[in-house]
Amino acid sequence: MNQTVKAAIIGSTGYGGVELIRLLASHPQVEVTSVISSSTAGAPIAEGYPHLTEIRTDILDDVDPALIRSKADVVFLATPPGIATKLIPSLLAEGLKVIDISGDHRLKSRSEYETWYKKEPAEQQYLDQAVYGLSEVYGESVRGIDFVSNPGCFPTSALLGLIPAVKAGFIDLSTIIIDAKSGVSGAGRGASLGTHYSELNENFKAYKINKHQHIPEIEQVLSDVAGQKVLTTFTTHLVPMTRGIMSTIYATVQGGHGTEDFISLYRNYYEGRKFVRVRGNGIWPSTKEVSGSNYCDIGFSVDERTGRVTIISVIDNLVKGAAGQAIQNLNLMMGWDETLGLNFVPMYP
Amino acid sequence: MNQTVKAAIIGSTGYGGVELIRLLASHPQVEVTSVISSSTAGAPIAEGYPHLTEIRTDILDDVDPALIRSKADVVFLATPPGIATKLIPSLLAEGLKVIDISGDHRLKSRSEYETWYKKEPAEQQYLDQAVYGLSEVYGESVRGIDFVSNPGCFPTSALLGLIPAVKAGFIDLSTIIIDAKSGVSGAGRGASLGTHYSELNENFKAYKINKHQHIPEIEQVLSDVAGQKVLTTFTTHLVPMTRGIMSTIYATVQGGHGTEDFISLYRNYYEGRKFVRVRGNGIWPSTKEVSGSNYCDIGFSVDERTGRVTIISVIDNLVKGAAGQAIQNLNLMMGWDETLGLNFVPMYP
Amino acid sequence: MNQTVKAAIIGSTGYGGVELIRLLASHPQVEVTSVISSSTAGAPIAEGYPHLTEIRTDILDDVDPALIRSKADVVFLATPPGIATKLIPSLLAEGLKVIDISGDHRLKSRSEYETWYKKEPAEQQYLDQAVYGLSEVYGESVRGIDFVSNPGCFPTSALLGLIPAVKAGFIDLSTIIIDAKSGVSGAGRGASLGTHYSELNENFKAYKINKHQHIPEIEQVLSDVAGQKVLTTFTTHLVPMTRGIMSTIYATVQGGHGTEDFISLYRNYYEGRKFVRVRGNGIWPSTKEVSGSNYCDIGFSVDERTGRVTIISVIDNLVKGAAGQAIQNLNLMMGWDETLGLNFVPMYP
Amino acid sequence: MNQTVKAAIIGSTGYGGVELIRLLASHPQVEVTSVISSSTAGAPIAEGYPHLTEIRTDILDDVDPALIRSKADVVFLATPPGIATKLIPSLLAEGLKVIDISGDHRLKSRSEYETWYKKEPAEQQYLDQAVYGLSEVYGESVRGIDFVSNPGCFPTSALLGLIPAVKAGFIDLSTIIIDAKSGVSGAGRGASLGTHYSELNENFKAYKINKHQHIPEIEQVLSDVAGQKVLTTFTTHLVPMTRGIMSTIYATVQGGHGTEDFISLYRNYYEGRKFVRVRGNGIWPSTKEVSGSNYCDIGFSVDERTGRVTIISVIDNLVKGAAGQAIQNLNLMMGWDETLGLNFVPMYP
Repeated sequence: MNQTVKAAIIGSTGYGGVELIRLLASHPQVEVTSVISSSTAGAPIAEGYPHLTEIRTDILDDVDPALIRSKADVVFLATPPGIATKLIPSLLAEGLKVIDISGDHRLKSRSEYETWYKKEPAEQQYLDQAVYGLSEVYGESVRGIDFVSNPGCFPTSALLGLIPAVKAGFIDLSTIIIDAKSGVSGAGRGASLGTHYSELNENFKAYKINKHQHIPEIEQVLSDVAGQKVLTTFTTHLVPMTRGIMSTIYATVQGGHGTEDFISLYRNYYEGRKFVRVRGNGIWPSTKEVSGSNYCDIGFSVDERTGRVTIISVIDNLVKGAAGQAIQNLNLMMGWDETLGLNFVPMYP
Repeated sequence: MNQTVKAAIIGSTGYGGVELIRLLASHPQVEVTSVISSSTAGAPIAEGYPHLTEIRTDILDDVDPALIRSKADVVFLATPPGIATKLIPSLLAEGLKVIDISGDHRLKSRSEYETWYKKEPAEQQYLDQAVYGLSEVYGESVRGIDFVSNPGCFPTSALLGLIPAVKAGFIDLSTIIIDAKSGVSGAGRGASLGTHYSELNENFKAYKINKHQHIPEIEQVLSDVAGQKVLTTFTTHLVPMTRGIMSTIYATVQGGHGTEDFISLYRNYYEGRKFVRVRGNGIWPSTKEVSGSNYCDIGFSVDERTGRVTIISVIDNLVKGAAGQAIQNLNLMMGWDETLGLNFVPMYP
Repeated sequence: MNQTVKAAIIGSTGYGGVELIRLLASHPQVEVTSVISSSTAGAPIAEGYPHLTEIRTDILDDVDPALIRSKADVVFLATPPGIATKLIPSLLAEGLKVIDISGDHRLKSRSEYETWYKKEPAEQQYLDQAVYGLSEVYGESVRGIDFVSNPGCFPTSALLGLIPAVKAGFIDLSTIIIDAKSGVSGAGRGASLGTHYSELNENFKAYKINKHQHIPEIEQVLSDVAGQKVLTTFTTHLVPMTRGIMSTIYATVQGGHGTEDFISLYRNYYEGRKFVRVRGNGIWPSTKEVSGSNYCDIGFSVDERTGRVTIISVIDNLVKGAAGQAIQNLNLMMGWDETLGLNFVPMYP
Repeated sequence: MNQTVKAAIIGSTGYGGVELIRLLASHPQVEVTSVISSSTAGAPIAEGYPHLTEIRTDILDDVDPALIRSKADVVFLATPPGIATKLIPSLLAEGLKVIDISGDHRLKSRSEYETWYKKEPAEQQYLDQAVYGLSEVYGESVRGIDFVSNPGCFPTSALLGLIPAVKAGFIDLSTIIIDAKSGVSGAGRGASLGTHYSELNENFKAYKINKHQHIPEIEQVLSDVAGQKVLTTFTTHLVPMTRGIMSTIYATVQGGHGTEDFISLYRNYYEGRKFVRVRGNGIWPSTKEVSGSNYCDIGFSVDERTGRVTIISVIDNLVKGAAGQAIQNLNLMMGWDETLGLNFVPMYP
C-alpha cells in the first residue's frame, strides 16, 4: 500500500536537480537516496547549495549505473544535452525506471535532433521507447511504463495552451504564433555573460529567434494531435526574474467561436486534471500566480475585430516545466494519483 | 543664432514631466522656466523628487495659461487623459507652441477617442490641427508648426518597426501581430495595487488584451501609411523592470524577401535619422541597450519555414516613447537639428 | 491522537494572512475553516488572490467572534496596528485560542506602545497575559497557553542573532548596533508611493531611522534576557526584492572570544531547535537561502583588529518573521512537535 | 582657451571603462581617441557593447604606451588589480597624464597592499607620486599634477560621509562602523556564480566580511585626516540591483551635537562643492536619487537615546565611485572647473 520508492537524481547540482530535491522532500512515497553529480562528486551537496544545510547532509555520488541500482528504484536525469543519451541504455539495462528531464529523448527523429541540438542523437530504439510525458495529454500512456521523456519548459506551457483548440478545430493551424517569455533560471546555473546579473537586470531581450530547439518539440506534438504537419512561429525572450514562463499564443479562430467557447472547451478538456486552471472571461494569469507550484494557468481573449484568439499560458519553469511534471510522471508510472506530493500552494507574493 | 527657447512643463510631477526636466537640463537652446502641477502647486518640485535637490529649486506653478505665456514660449503637456483636451485651446490662443505628450490629440476621430479612452474628446479642429509627431516618419510635417501631438510609447516602438515594411509592401497587412512588453514606469507614478512592488516584482503579466487605447493609434498610422484600412492584434505585458519597451512584431512576408532585404530596406528608409539603429543579421536589440537614450533599435529574422518575419523594436519608454521624442519634435518645430540636446549615450549597464 | 484543529484567520487578505493559508495547506493537523477580512467580506478570497483559484473557494467572512467560535478553535490575527487590541478580548472570551501576529500585544508597557505606535494600547491585563512567542527562546512558556503575541519580523531576526551572546556575556551590551534590511513585502499590500514599483526597483533606501516601532520590542527582550536595561541602535532599509530580512549586527566582544567560540555557543544554545541553522566559520547566510522556509540562519565573524563581532542573521520575513513562527507557536500551544507542517525546503533559486 | 584634451581608456571593456565612454561623450573639452583592451584588441568595441552601435565605431587597441602617446594626452586605467602597477611607469615615462581607477596606487604602504590585495605592489616611488583623488577633500592637491589614484567606490561613499565629522571631532574615532551595500555592477563584468542572475536576484548577501581591500584604504584616509591611527569595522553587502552604493555609518557622538549640528557642519565643509548634497533633517537619500550622476548625497540622524549618529551616504558606484570622479580629477588636473561635463541630472525613476 504505502509503497515507498527510492529515487536517484543525476544532475543534482543543476537547478532542475535541486528543485527535484525540494519537491520530493515532502512527497509521502518517495525517498531520495542518491544525489549525483559527475562534476562535483565527493563534495557535500550543501556546500554548493547552502540552503540545503542540515536538510541534505549527503555527499554527491559519481555517475555509476550499478551503484545507482543498489541505492534506487527510479532515476531522474536533469543533465545538459547529450549526457542522458549516453547514460540511459545502461540505466534501463539495470532495471531502473528512468525519467529524462533533459531534451535528449523528446524528438522522435534522430535527424531533427541533430539539426536543432547539434549533438549526436540517441539510438532510435530509445527514442521509440521513451513516452513523452506531457501529463494532461499523454498521461494514460505513461501509466506503468519504465521510461519517460519529460517535456521541455516552453513546450509544456505552449502545448497545454494549444492542444484543446487544435484538437477541436477551433483555430487555423497555419496561423499559430507563440511569443514566449522565461525567467532566467531556465538558462541553468552555468556562469556566462548571458546570465550575468548586471547584463540581465533591468533588461528584456529576445534570443535564439527561429532557432530554439523547442520549436521541433512543439511542432511534433501539435502535428501528432492534429493528425497533420503543423508549423509554428515560436520566439523566446528573457525576463528579468528568476522563475516563470508565459506563452502568449496567437491564432486565427475558426467556426466563429468566442472567448466563452474557448473557456468551456478547455474546462471540459482538462476536467479532473487538477494542475490546469482555466481562468474566467477577462482574467489572465500572471507568472507569480503559479510560482513554486505545479499549476499551468490559462486565459483567453477572442478579438472580433481581427478574428484572432490570444491565449495566455503560464507555468513555473522549474516545477510544471521540469521537476514538478517529472514527479507527476513518476506518480503516473507508479500508478499513484498524479497529484501525490505536488499540492504546493503557489508562493505569493 | 543661438536662439534660446523658454519652456514650461504641465504635469511636471509625473514620470514624463520629470524626464523632460532631466533631458532639457543639457539642451543647449532650451531653458525650463516653469514647472507646473495642479495637484501640488506651491510646493518645491524637489520635495516630491529629491533627486532634483539643488538642481531645480523652483516652486511648482499652478496651471494658468496667461502666467505660462508670461514665462514661456513653448509648453509641454505630460498630463493624464482628458486634461490636455481642456487646456490646449487657451494655450494656443495665448500664442504658445504646444507639444501634447498625453494621448488626447492622437486619434483624429472623436468617436474613436470616446470608444477607447472613455473620455470626452477634444474639439475636431484641434484634432485636425495637431500633427502626429512620429519624428522619423512625419518630421517634415512638424517643421515650423505650433501644435504637435506626441506619439504613444507603444506606438512609437511598433510603428518604427513596421512602417518601412508596410510602405514597401514587404508584409501581408492582414497578418500583423504586435506582442509588446513594457517596464512599469509606463504606468505612471500613481500608487495602486497594479503598480505595487511586491505584486510586480518576479512577475510577468499581460493586461488590457485587445482593449488598449494604443491599438487605434497604431492602426490609424499604419492605415495612413498603407493607404488602406489596417487592423492589428496588439498585446501589452508588464515586465518587472522600470524602463524599456520591446515590441516583438510578426507578419507574413510577401515577395520572398529575406532578413538581409529587411535590413537594407530599413537602413535606406532611416538613412540620416540618427535615432533609429538597424541591427545586423542575427543580432537583436535588448531594452537596456537604449536605456536613458532616444534610440529606437530594430532587428529582424525571416523564417523560411513559416514565411514569417519577426521584427524586434526597442525604445526607452520615457525617452523616445515620451520626453525625448517630444524634444525631438520641439527641435523640428524650431527648425533646429532634430538631435539637438539629445545625444545621450545609453546607460549600460 | 491525530487531533485536528480548526483555524480562522483575521486579516486574510494581507500578505501575512495569505502566507498562513499557503503554509497551513500542508499542515497535517490544522484545517483553515474561516478566512476573514472586514474590508472585503462577502467576496471570494481567490478574487483578490488569483493564485488561490480552485485552492480556496471560500467567501471571506466578516469579523464576528461568535461566528468565528462556531467555525474554529484557534484564530490568527494578521491585522494592521490597533485592530487586534479591540478584537482579542471578545475572542478570548469566546474560548478561542489566539495568536496575534500584529504588534499590538508585544510591548508590555502601555506607554511604550503609545510612544512608538501612536495608537491606543491594549488593556494591561491582555498585555500581561500574552506570551511573547519567540519560539526558540520562550517556547517553553508557550506550551499549553491560550494567547500568544507573535514576534515582529525584524525582532525575530535580530533577537535570534543576539540572545545567546547576550546571555553568555560574550558582548558588551552598550555597543549593540543592528543594521537591518528587508524585502518590500514587509510593508504590506497597501498601495502607496512608498511601495510603488518604479520608486523601489533599482533603489536602496533607509527609513524610519531611530523611530521604528521594533526598537522597543528588541530592547524589551534583550533587557529581559540580560537582566538589565539594554539600548540598541537599530536601522531599517528597504531592499529591492519581495521577501527576506537580513540583520547585520555589530558589538564589541568581551572575554576574548573568537569566531569559533561564537559558533559553538550558538550551536549549543540552539541544539535541538531545527529552525536555527548556525553556519560554519567563513560562511555567511544570504536571504535566498531561507526563502519560503521557517529557517533563521546565522553566521559570525570576529575581527581581532577592532575587537568587534559581526553577526549575520537571515529569515524569510513572511515565514519565520510572521506566518511560519505563528504556526510554530500553534504547534507549541497544542503540545505538538514545533516543526509540524513546517518542513519546507527553502525555494532556491 | 577651449583647450581640448585627447583621452585613452585602458580597460574599455569593463564597466568602469564603458562608463567613462558614456560620460566623456558629452564632455565639452575631452575627446576619447583610443579605446583599449588587451583581451579583445582588434574587435569593434560595439560588438561587445551593442549599446554603442553607431556611437563608437572604433576598433579596440592593444596596450602599447608609445601608440597611446601618439593618440592621447591623458590615459585612464580601468583595469583589474595588478595591471596598472605594471603599465603606469612606462605611461608616465611617455609624458602621459595618468588617472588610475584601479586600486593599485591607493595604499601608500607596499606591505598593506600585499596583505589585502594578495598581489605584487607598485614601486614605492609611484605610490608616493600618486595623489589620492577624493576630489572634495584632496582636490587642491590634484590641481596641475600628472598622476592621480582614483578612490574606490566604497571608500568614496564612506569617506565623504565621515571626514567632516572626523575633522571636527564630532565623533569618537574608536566607534566607527560602516555598513555598506552595493549594486552588482561593482563586481565587474566577469561571469561567475557570484554574479549569476538567478543567484543574486531576490537575494541579499554579505561578502568579504572583515577582509575587503577597501578597509585599509578607508583607514588610511581617516587616519590622515584625524592625525592619528583610526580603525573601522566595514562590511559589504550585495543588493539585487545594478548600480548604487549606500554606506550606513554609525559612531558615538562627542560634544553633545545633534542632527542639525551635523547638517550645518557638513554644509559648511562642502560649501561650493556641487557634487555633495547634504539633506535636511529627517530626510535620507536613497541610491536611485543619484543614479547616473556624480552626486554623493548625505543625511543624518542623531539618536539621543543611544548617543550615536547614523549617517547615510549614497553614490552611483560607476559614476562618483569610478568614472565620474575620474573625470572630476581630470578637470582638476587640467585646471578646469571640476564640474565640467559632469552635470548629469540623476536618472529617476
